[in-house]
Amino acid sequence: MRELELIGDLSTLLRAEDARLIRWVGDDAAVVRAAGPYSVTSVDTMVDGVHFRCSELSWAEIGHRALAAALSDLAAMGLDRGEAYLALGLPQGAQRGQWAELIGSAQALADRTGCTIAGGDITRAPALTVSVTVTGHTDDPGRLTTRDGARPSDLVGVTGTLGDSAAGLAVLEERVRVEDERDEALRTALGQLRGRYSRPEPRLAVGRALAEAGATAMIDLSDGLATDAGHLGRAGGVQLELELARLPLSDGVVAAARQLSLAPAELAATGGEDYELCTCAPASARKLVEAAVTQADAALRITWIGRVIQGEAGVSFLDATSRLAGFEHTV
Amino acid sequence: MRELELIGDLSTLLRAEDARLIRWVGDDAAVVRAAGPYSVTSVDTMVDGVHFRCSELSWAEIGHRALAAALSDLAAMGLDRGEAYLALGLPQGAQRGQWAELIGSAQALADRTGCTIAGGDITRAPALTVSVTVTGHTDDPGRLTTRDGARPSDLVGVTGTLGDSAAGLAVLEERVRVEDERDEALRTALGQLRGRYSRPEPRLAVGRALAEAGATAMIDLSDGLATDAGHLGRAGGVQLELELARLPLSDGVVAAARQLSLAPAELAATGGEDYELCTCAPASARKLVEAAVTQADAALRITWIGRVIQGEAGVSFLDATSRLAGFEHTV
Repeated sequence: MRELELIGDLSTLLRAEDARLIRWVGDDAAVVRAAGPYSVTSVDTMVDGVHFRCSELSWAEIGHRALAAALSDLAAMGLDRGEAYLALGLPQGAQRGQWAELIGSAQALADRTGCTIAGGDITRAPALTVSVTVTGHTDDPGRLTTRDGARPSDLVGVTGTLGDSAAGLAVLEERVRVEDERDEALRTALGQLRGRYSRPEPRLAVGRALAEAGATAMIDLSDGLATDAGHLGRAGGVQLELELARLPLSDGVVAAARQLSLAPAELAATGGEDYELCTCAPASARKLVEAAVTQADAALRITWIGRVIQGEAGVSFLDATSRLAGFEHTV
Repeated sequence: MRELELIGDLSTLLRAEDARLIRWVGDDAAVVRAAGPYSVTSVDTMVDGVHFRCSELSWAEIGHRALAAALSDLAAMGLDRGEAYLALGLPQGAQRGQWAELIGSAQALADRTGCTIAGGDITRAPALTVSVTVTGHTDDPGRLTTRDGARPSDLVGVTGTLGDSAAGLAVLEERVRVEDERDEALRTALGQLRGRYSRPEPRLAVGRALAEAGATAMIDLSDGLATDAGHLGRAGGVQLELELARLPLSDGVVAAARQLSLAPAELAATGGEDYELCTCAPASARKLVEAAVTQADAALRITWIGRVIQGEAGVSFLDATSRLAGFEHTV
């Protein structure tokens, strides 16, 4: 199939119903009426064999996942919607049904989150490649939650539970399994982990709610808490002092960690691709932040896992027993 | 080298000096103060083995070319600047010196054209992949030159000369060569063709000048005149009736076509990747358009190659002798 036909296909598969979208697939460029004079843009690329394996995920899951990862960057800036542009690289032998599934699944996530897929590009590539550019808009860049705003005595919180996606990949790869056929609870828990890996949820509404409730800095957890909290610390010139015992764990992660011979907190601290948000906020905003998260997503809560201190810029972890009292004192 | 280090490298290699750029590489997203409330975005991907061959181009040329192709889409919309985001996929064994060259070359083109490279992404990939997202801004989307504005009796013009890039690729691949060592004129001409392939020039200033001078429709010539003029015809529901004898040819293309056993006009009509502009304009705007092009770029001129007629939507070609008189009559 020639590239021109592929691109024609893109306009058939996508639905452009957003009134802000003036031109899109089929012209030289898409034209969008921006929702504010400042644009916020991020690019995220996923390649088969590098960021996922086609043998482990459906094309629908790959499409969802790539868009979710890109939108998660907007969420971390405190924005809850934007436009997305999908650049697909299709390997030899890819079938129309496959890329239709990929695009359809991205479109479904876009619809559900109020995002507009405004354009894209399809080409041949040696391996399936999905590069997603997302752009959001704001009137006031001062209200964006960038990485560098953490201040000493801020609390550090994370949404949801951690390590689920890494554990879900282990389930997919059968490194973790249901050992006793009758263990329905474990089967359900491992199924949920798999879903956390294959269909992560960008925390768009919660990200915006956190920004409005007074978050001072924010990052989405794509590389794992240990790495990403380190980014917040270094960007802010502060240390995020986190307590392993406080990391929020799902039942599935505890079970998966046991099978993987890892401490559950270690899996939670180092596993990537949860796309939860890690945020800093003044202790005085604690109740407001907690309420804002629940109001934005009734199924989600924030867990306070540490605090910001002066010290070597980056992240440090306390073990379970050492300084809980000190932490409590700051609240 | 790990991805985090690669991304750190991106911020070292790029220079972000634009005052409109509020946040960039190193945060979750880049933040730009938009130059107008409408954003115009295009994505263009080039993959080794599909759109170019690493064995034929330097990494500097690949970087230039990928950004030029993306900026060319903005030019075709009548915009002369914008932000660019580079998503690089690097194959195993890629050296820092190579991607530094690629990024440096893109940065040099950006500097020269008033474009800002505002962010990007570096990852591993099975083949060198450069995906470029460009975003321009405008106050008035009605002044953009989209593909669908051509009207019967409009003139059709192209900037520069056509077929040079396709001929340049033939030079690179040694399908065209200097047969007589003493033929310095041919050596020079073929060297210029090679440059047209390896370092195409996005016609940003000229595109904007054409839009302001009254162009009704515009497209950049990436797939070749026959294909791209067809897009203008179909988008506008009109026929672009073009005359092969009028296509602007460089001396090199004439020589290359002879060696390739092609008619020069055939090479010019079908060769892609010249990134010249094909535009439609009312005959009444002819002088204004010609002057605008020369004022925007003293080295460039527009050549009128046909006219817009009612008829089957698309493009048709007249041969050298058939209807020149009729064409002249419209002017």
